[in-house]
Amino acid sequence: MAADILSIAVLGATGSVGLQTLDVVRSCLPGIKVKALTGYSNVNALAVLVNEFKPNLACVKNDADAKKLSGLLTTKCEIVTGDAGLEICAAKSDADIVVNALVGRVGLAPTLTAINAGKNIALANKETLVTAGELIMRLAHENNVRIIPIDSEHSAIWQCLQGGGEVEKIILTASGGPFRTWTKDAISICTAEQALSHPRWNMGAKITIDSATLMNKGLELIEAMYLFDQPMENIEILVHPQSIIHSMVQFVDGVVMAQMGVPDMRLPILYALTSSGRVANNFQRLDFLANNSLTFEAVDMENFPCLALATHAAKTGGTLPAVMNFINEWAVGQFLQGTLKFYDISRLITEAFGAYTLQPITDISDVWAAEDWASNFVRNR
Amino acid sequence: MAADILSIAVLGATGSVGLQTLDVVRSCLPGIKVKALTGYSNVNALAVLVNEFKPNLACVKNDADAKKLSGLLTTKCEIVTGDAGLEICAAKSDADIVVNALVGRVGLAPTLTAINAGKNIALANKETLVTAGELIMRLAHENNVRIIPIDSEHSAIWQCLQGGGEVEKIILTASGGPFRTWTKDAISICTAEQALSHPRWNMGAKITIDSATLMNKGLELIEAMYLFDQPMENIEILVHPQSIIHSMVQFVDGVVMAQMGVPDMRLPILYALTSSGRVANNFQRLDFLANNSLTFEAVDMENFPCLALATHAAKTGGTLPAVMNFINEWAVGQFLQGTLKFYDISRLITEAFGAYTLQPITDISDVWAAEDWASNFVRNR
Repeated sequence: MAADILSIAVLGATGSVGLQTLDVVRSCLPGIKVKALTGYSNVNALAVLVNEFKPNLACVKNDADAKKLSGLLTTKCEIVTGDAGLEICAAKSDADIVVNALVGRVGLAPTLTAINAGKNIALANKETLVTAGELIMRLAHENNVRIIPIDSEHSAIWQCLQGGGEVEKIILTASGGPFRTWTKDAISICTAEQALSHPRWNMGAKITIDSATLMNKGLELIEAMYLFDQPMENIEILVHPQSIIHSMVQFVDGVVMAQMGVPDMRLPILYALTSSGRVANNFQRLDFLANNSLTFEAVDMENFPCLALATHAAKTGGTLPAVMNFINEWAVGQFLQGTLKFYDISRLITEAFGAYTLQPITDISDVWAAEDWASNFVRNR
Repeated sequence: MAADILSIAVLGATGSVGLQTLDVVRSCLPGIKVKALTGYSNVNALAVLVNEFKPNLACVKNDADAKKLSGLLTTKCEIVTGDAGLEICAAKSDADIVVNALVGRVGLAPTLTAINAGKNIALANKETLVTAGELIMRLAHENNVRIIPIDSEHSAIWQCLQGGGEVEKIILTASGGPFRTWTKDAISICTAEQALSHPRWNMGAKITIDSATLMNKGLELIEAMYLFDQPMENIEILVHPQSIIHSMVQFVDGVVMAQMGVPDMRLPILYALTSSGRVANNFQRLDFLANNSLTFEAVDMENFPCLALATHAAKTGGTLPAVMNFINEWAVGQFLQGTLKFYDISRLITEAFGAYTLQPITDISDVWAAEDWASNFVRNR
C-alpha cells in the first residue's frame, strides 16, 4: 500500500462502485481510514456501512432520512443532508482522496467542490468529464489535484501508460453489450429486463442500460479524451466480447500494451486507491485455458446509434456532450420505467441535437444552462 | 531516441538479428554510430554492411577472410580475426552498447569480455544466460552493466515491468512451433525442411529448430529466470499460436499486463537500443480485425520432451543447463544435416543427463569444463 493515501471519502457509498470500494478497503487496505460516506436515500445500507467503517461524516437525502439513519447508528457520526451535505463530504471530510462513485450528472458538483478544496479524486462518475471535461481538467491542473480513473477501461489505459512512451492511439475495448448479436428489429422491442442482463459486468442499472445502447462507450470515449489529453481521432473503439482485455494503448513505435484480468471492478478501485501501487489480494485470477479465445469485432454504429451520437458530441465539444448526457440520463430513466423504447433514447438525443444551439463552456454555469435547456426540452416534448 | 545511447557494436552482424539491428539503425535511429561489426565467415554480406555503416572495426573468421574483406571495402576499417577479434570488438570498439546477436554458445565469451569492459549489452544470444546466467548477472551487477533483452518474449516482459509493481508470475508465450498440431509419430519422421517452416517468425536455422522442438522456449524460461530474478515456479509457459501477445506479466494484484504487436524482431531491437524509449516508425501496425482471435493452449510436454528437459535443467541449476545447451546445439546441427532425427535431440540430452555428474558454477571455467564433458560425450557416442 502506498503510504501517501491514508483516508478516503466515498460519495455514493451504497451504489455498486461504492460498495466495491469499501470491500477493497475491508479486504485489501484495512489501514485506510474512511472519513465520509454518502448514501442519498439508501438509509439502511448506509447505516450498516457507517457502523462498520465509522466515518466522521455521513450524508443522506433529507432530514427524515437523517433521523432514520441516526436511529440505526451504533457509532458517533455527524449526519448532513442533501446537495449541501454532499459538498461538505466532498470538501470538508479531512480525506486525502474523494472517491466519486455517484451515478449520473449529480456527480459533477461534488467533483468541482473537491477540486476547489484541493482533494485528489478517484473518479468513477464518468458524467463529470463528459459534461465538463475541459473545465474539470483545467481546474484540477490549477489546483494541483489528481483525477484518478476508476472505470475499468480508463484504469487499464492508465496502467498501460505507466511505462512511459508517446501514444499513437488508445484502443478502448467494448463488450458490445447484451444486444451485440441481435437484429435491429429485435433490439427495437427489447425490454428493460433484457437490457439489464449485461454479459460480463455486474453494475448499476443506469450504466447497464448505457452499456446496452453503447452510450456508455461513447461517454468513455469523451472521458478518455480529457483524462489522457488525446484528440478523438486517436481513440479507437474495438468490440471484445469477453471483456478480458480492459483496454489497450498503441505507442508510436507500434507496440500495443494491454491490461487484462477477470472482470472485477475491485481491481481498478484498488489500483486507484494505492496511487498505482499493486497490492496482493485473493481475488480470482485470470485462467487463460478457461478463457482460451479473445476475439475482436468492429463496432456496429448502425444498430447502436447512441455511439455515433456520442462521437458527434465528442467532435463538436462545447456544451453538446452535456446536453446529450442530460437527455440520455432522462431517457434511460424512462426506458427503465417502460415509458420509452430502446431506440427512443437515441431518437430523443438526435432531436435535441437538432433543436439546440451550441455554446462554448467558459465556466460551469454554461454546463448548468445547457442542462436547463435539456430539462426544458424533455419537459416540453 | 534516448540521448544516452550513441554508438553500438554488433556481434553477429550478418545473422538474422544482426541484419535487423542494422535495419533499425538505418530506418529509425540514423543518429546511432556503428563502431564495430562482426560477420565470421559471411564476408560478402559483411563487406556491404561495413561500406554502409563505416565502423572502425570489423571481425571475420581468419586471415584469408580478412584479406578477402579488405579487397571489398571502400572505407577505412581495421580488420581483426577469430575469437580474439570478436573480443576486441566486444570490449575495445568505443561503443556504448554491445549488441550480442551471435548464435549459440560462442556468444558467451564476448558477453563476459563486454561486461568486464563495462559495456552495456543488448542480448539476443540466449545461450549466454542459459549456460552461465547466475554468474553473468552477478558480474553485470558488479560491473554496473545493464543486460537488455532483445528476444521478443523477454523484451515484452521487460516492457510489462516498466510500470512497476511486484510480480506474481511471468507468462511466457509460445507459438507452439510448426508441429503443434502434429502427432508424435508424424513428428518423429519430420525433415529439417519441415522444421524450418516456422509459422510466425522468420529467424535463423538454429533457433527455428529450437522452436520446433520447444527447446527454444526452455532456453527462454532459463533466460527469464536470470534476467528477471524469478524462480522457475513463477514462470508459466502458455501456447499462443498467433504470436501476437509476445509475453505477459501477472502482478500480485492479479492484473495481467501484455505486450502485443506484429511479429517483427525490429520492435524489441528498437526498444533495447533506445533504453526503453519508444521511437516512431513505419513498421506494420497490428490490425485487430485481421487478427480477430487470440487463442491459448496448454503446452504439450509429451510431444515436445525438450521442454521438459529444459525445465528439469532449470530446476537443477549448476552446470546442467550448459551441458544441455551444448548437446542440443550439436544435435540440432546434426538434425539440420540429416544425420539425426527429431527425437534424437531429446534422446541424446536425456542420455547425457543420465551420464553427467552435476557441478556448481563458481566461475566461468566450470562452464567450460561442462562443455568439454559434453563435447566428449557427443564425440564418444
